[in-house]
Amino acid sequence: MGENATTHHTNSANNGANDNQIGFKSRVSVIGSGSWGSVAAKLVAFNTLNLSSFHDEVKMWVFEETLQSGEKLTDAINRTNENVKYLPGIKLGKNVIADPDLDNAVKDANMLVFVTPHQFIDNICKSLVGKVRSDAEAISLIKGMEVKIEGACLISTYISEQLGINCSVLMGANLANEIAEEKFSEATVGYRNNREIAEQWVQLFTTPYFMVTPVQDVEGVELCGTLKNVVAIAAGFVDGLDMGNNTKAAIIRFGLREMREFCKLLFSSVKDDTFFESCGVADVITTCFGGRNTKVAEAFARNGGKRSFDELEAEMLQGQKLQGVTTGREVYEVLRHRGLLELFPLFATVHEICSGCLPPSAIVIYSEKKNIFPV
Amino acid sequence: MGENATTHHTNSANNGANDNQIGFKSRVSVIGSGSWGSVAAKLVAFNTLNLSSFHDEVKMWVFEETLQSGEKLTDAINRTNENVKYLPGIKLGKNVIADPDLDNAVKDANMLVFVTPHQFIDNICKSLVGKVRSDAEAISLIKGMEVKIEGACLISTYISEQLGINCSVLMGANLANEIAEEKFSEATVGYRNNREIAEQWVQLFTTPYFMVTPVQDVEGVELCGTLKNVVAIAAGFVDGLDMGNNTKAAIIRFGLREMREFCKLLFSSVKDDTFFESCGVADVITTCFGGRNTKVAEAFARNGGKRSFDELEAEMLQGQKLQGVTTGREVYEVLRHRGLLELFPLFATVHEICSGCLPPSAIVIYSEKKNIFPV
Repeated sequence: MGENATTHHTNSANNGANDNQIGFKSRVSVIGSGSWGSVAAKLVAFNTLNLSSFHDEVKMWVFEETLQSGEKLTDAINRTNENVKYLPGIKLGKNVIADPDLDNAVKDANMLVFVTPHQFIDNICKSLVGKVRSDAEAISLIKGMEVKIEGACLISTYISEQLGINCSVLMGANLANEIAEEKFSEATVGYRNNREIAEQWVQLFTTPYFMVTPVQDVEGVELCGTLKNVVAIAAGFVDGLDMGNNTKAAIIRFGLREMREFCKLLFSSVKDDTFFESCGVADVITTCFGGRNTKVAEAFARNGGKRSFDELEAEMLQGQKLQGVTTGREVYEVLRHRGLLELFPLFATVHEICSGCLPPSAIVIYSEKKNIFPV
Repeated sequence: MGENATTHHTNSANNGANDNQIGFKSRVSVIGSGSWGSVAAKLVAFNTLNLSSFHDEVKMWVFEETLQSGEKLTDAINRTNENVKYLPGIKLGKNVIADPDLDNAVKDANMLVFVTPHQFIDNICKSLVGKVRSDAEAISLIKGMEVKIEGACLISTYISEQLGINCSVLMGANLANEIAEEKFSEATVGYRNNREIAEQWVQLFTTPYFMVTPVQDVEGVELCGTLKNVVAIAAGFVDGLDMGNNTKAAIIRFGLREMREFCKLLFSSVKDDTFFESCGVADVITTCFGGRNTKVAEAFARNGGKRSFDELEAEMLQGQKLQGVTTGREVYEVLRHRGLLELFPLFATVHEICSGCLPPSAIVIYSEKKNIFPV
């Protein structure tokens, strides 16, 4: 691993929050085993093996399934060292141990990586109450919080409150299959107060092909991971209308600006610079040039809005729902409730198009809208 | 034109610097008539016709050529109302008058729009000394300044010093043919001190499909238009290496960050927010997804760096030179001279790849580079 690992190794006794005691080794569990969860386990396992401040072994909680062959998924993972169902062909590291028992998977860990689909986090947290170490630190890699009128329901806050532990986040331009193939990528860690904790997460995830930058802004970083999907819908409309490069770049820029202003509206602590990080501008670019929100929105616009998102989702995503449409509606409700719709013309227009109130071409009618947030 | 025009119209007596005198009408000349120059004339002519604070007529200086038919280019433009050579099929507005005589084209104008290829601006300015009105205001749409060890040679500053008049800039994600087709686009006006002057330029260029935002940061806005080409080269290498979306987004983000830091190094007045404008993030996106710097750099990487940029330019651009390669070298010299190369790993690496010192794959070797500009 070269210089990176050596540096970490040498400094490890001073870097972590939990490893100030000489000889203390952090234990890591990954909760979730989809494609992104498996990649996260791979990144983490590479480092626990190479850094003396971590126990080698990484537990990965797997929602048990029986494969077509009749073998249990956990057995197949532990036998082949691959997640044969959700990330086939990628070795996770021999020190990754799949465990179907959630309580057992977390009980010794002081570092918990949450990376499940967002709709499962409720039940997982509830079943973990009282089961995790009181000195544990958590990090959420889960995108897709709810934005309610009373405020944003950060998944990191939910984990924190349910389990009584601190929770950071990791977000960024992270298409899982590209990281699995060790193509260069980067991510942002959002942390609350303790820089040492952030450094420990950075250590745990950084590899020569995965660069991680810490930012003291949990809310901004986590919100980016959700709001970008609304921008991706707008970008898809532009694609479907064949509006060209200038228009798409303009719409992405407006979206990034509205993301920033919306985050600051919900949390005054959010920092402008967060949107220059991987979780901001880079993730928006990745999502708008190839994400599924953009692709389905493109199809919606090509059909002139005559086929609903429900119908297109059923056809193109095998019934999975597009996060951007849902988040767009939630954001719209928040803005309407606060009387701020006209300050967010892009967000407002996306929902009005998705709900059939406006045609897709409305996405580029800006001439009569105010030039908002002037410098 | 609707509400926009009405608003401008009503307020025009209070908005401009030169139209405070009741009845004063600004006269506009466009200096340059390539595709971007012709589009600029079209935008401007739409507004001079509709706004009472401007004379209808827009003079466009054209470098005279004889067409294959034997007709002079200026005669053809004035007869057909199209730039038949550089923007065929697009009506410029009947109030655009092509003039081959530079002195005559500018002599009555108090608003001068410079939009020539950058290599011609020297001679044009020299020949205009003493010929322009002393109360004239200029704006430069020209991308491609030189960056020298003693500092950046802003084209706006050059115009200003040569002619003794103030000069603003207009930059952004502006592929000329898309604006010619009236596809929605936007741009940034960078101005020096006088907000009223900026508002006048905004008025002159804004149409329902072209949105213009003023920013008090001439240096930042103008530098963006040049430095983005270095980022475009880096993005092209990523394309040529088939590195995927995460990597490309990461490289674009690093590039945007280095643009910002480099600008602040040259001019401490440069504002962070400028990079959220059309001239910043939007122009970088447009350029990195389809610009010619990116396309030729992609070919360079696909050939493993074995065919030089000179060779590829000759083949792909009919001998035109790529601005990104030239600017990359200039930026490298500035950074080397100041001992700052290691703070700008992307800019440094681009030049080292272009000059054959490193292979194209070096663009994504970041593991041993410092994490610069931490928040």
